[in-house]
Amino acid sequence: MLILHDNIESGNAFKVRLLLHQLGIPFNSIQYDVTKGATRTSDFLTRINSNGRIPVVEFEDGRCLAESNAILYYFGVNTIFFPKDKWQQAEVMQWLFFEQYSHEPFVAVAKYILTMLPCDSPRRAEIPTLHTKGYAALQIMEHRLKKHEYLVGEDYSIADIALFSYTHKAEMGDFNLSLFPNIQKWITRIEQRPDFISMYPKDWKKI
Amino acid sequence: MLILHDNIESGNAFKVRLLLHQLGIPFNSIQYDVTKGATRTSDFLTRINSNGRIPVVEFEDGRCLAESNAILYYFGVNTIFFPKDKWQQAEVMQWLFFEQYSHEPFVAVAKYILTMLPCDSPRRAEIPTLHTKGYAALQIMEHRLKKHEYLVGEDYSIADIALFSYTHKAEMGDFNLSLFPNIQKWITRIEQRPDFISMYPKDWKKI
Repeated sequence: MLILHDNIESGNAFKVRLLLHQLGIPFNSIQYDVTKGATRTSDFLTRINSNGRIPVVEFEDGRCLAESNAILYYFGVNTIFFPKDKWQQAEVMQWLFFEQYSHEPFVAVAKYILTMLPCDSPRRAEIPTLHTKGYAALQIMEHRLKKHEYLVGEDYSIADIALFSYTHKAEMGDFNLSLFPNIQKWITRIEQRPDFISMYPKDWKKI
Repeated sequence: MLILHDNIESGNAFKVRLLLHQLGIPFNSIQYDVTKGATRTSDFLTRINSNGRIPVVEFEDGRCLAESNAILYYFGVNTIFFPKDKWQQAEVMQWLFFEQYSHEPFVAVAKYILTMLPCDSPRRAEIPTLHTKGYAALQIMEHRLKKHEYLVGEDYSIADIALFSYTHKAEMGDFNLSLFPNIQKWITRIEQRPDFISMYPKDWKKI
């Protein structure tokens, strides 16, 4: 069976869990504590991902694929979660690269600093800059979602999965989502899909 | 004709110039001085790219596509610069996202700080961290290129174009490429392709 090298706190990993669930593809999850360097061991770097990051999907023949949005592409292409139209395919790509360059480094990192590091971490000094840049990314999404139900065309796609993941937990990084009513409606729309699963399972408790 | 919203100093823009040239697609280039906020004007944000960045390709009907690697995908897919094999397609995507998350923010930003900002810029303090992270990215490329001529499969693809761009100018950011003999051979291999063009035209002089 497919193995997902995973971390419950990672929005990048949740993207993959959500898409695999929505596609009905079974997998086993292996959890890594990234705060303790579990993805930087010699075995992980040699066999799983030389870049020392999760998520990674490992196939039965041992091949490994890293980069959450590359994984979304691999499983999403030629399914209902990737548009057929060539222009819309390019727009999906635009949102995926936007997410990794202009959204995740700010929205995800604020969540990480405020929920995973000690209260007196010197990295808290980064929060004002992360907020400025993260709010700019959220504003771009809000603008698009003002007139459209989803990010590309009128259908849910891997672009929505990629952006939804850290956006719907942005308040854990102290972002105020009430400033973005159309993002909030889009989050609700995605959460109300019958094939939706939560990022944190109901029985999950932070240690 | 296609318009490329462009900047001669941007490796992200050069990726697009190189691929369009190699595909024989003509375009007009419009240059922007990003150090003077030329991509943050109201017209640019409204009409070209709400994220205020180049490169952007503008089609004759006014549609605009941003994100350099999304542009590479749009023009590269279904050409010789994108593999036919589904697994190799995923590997191309893995390298494209690696480039934007783990390479460009360090290798490109070091070049920007050292060549575009004043010598006394306080941003020079970022250089040691940028070097640590940028060298880690270069090491991952070096490892792959030790046993392969190109990043994916055995053929030149948009993955090579994406990574080549800032890597071949990494010394402008004070990275020592002599530490990476296989990257150097790969750079030479790409520069010797008959369809190669230089990032800086011969008659170009920095103002």
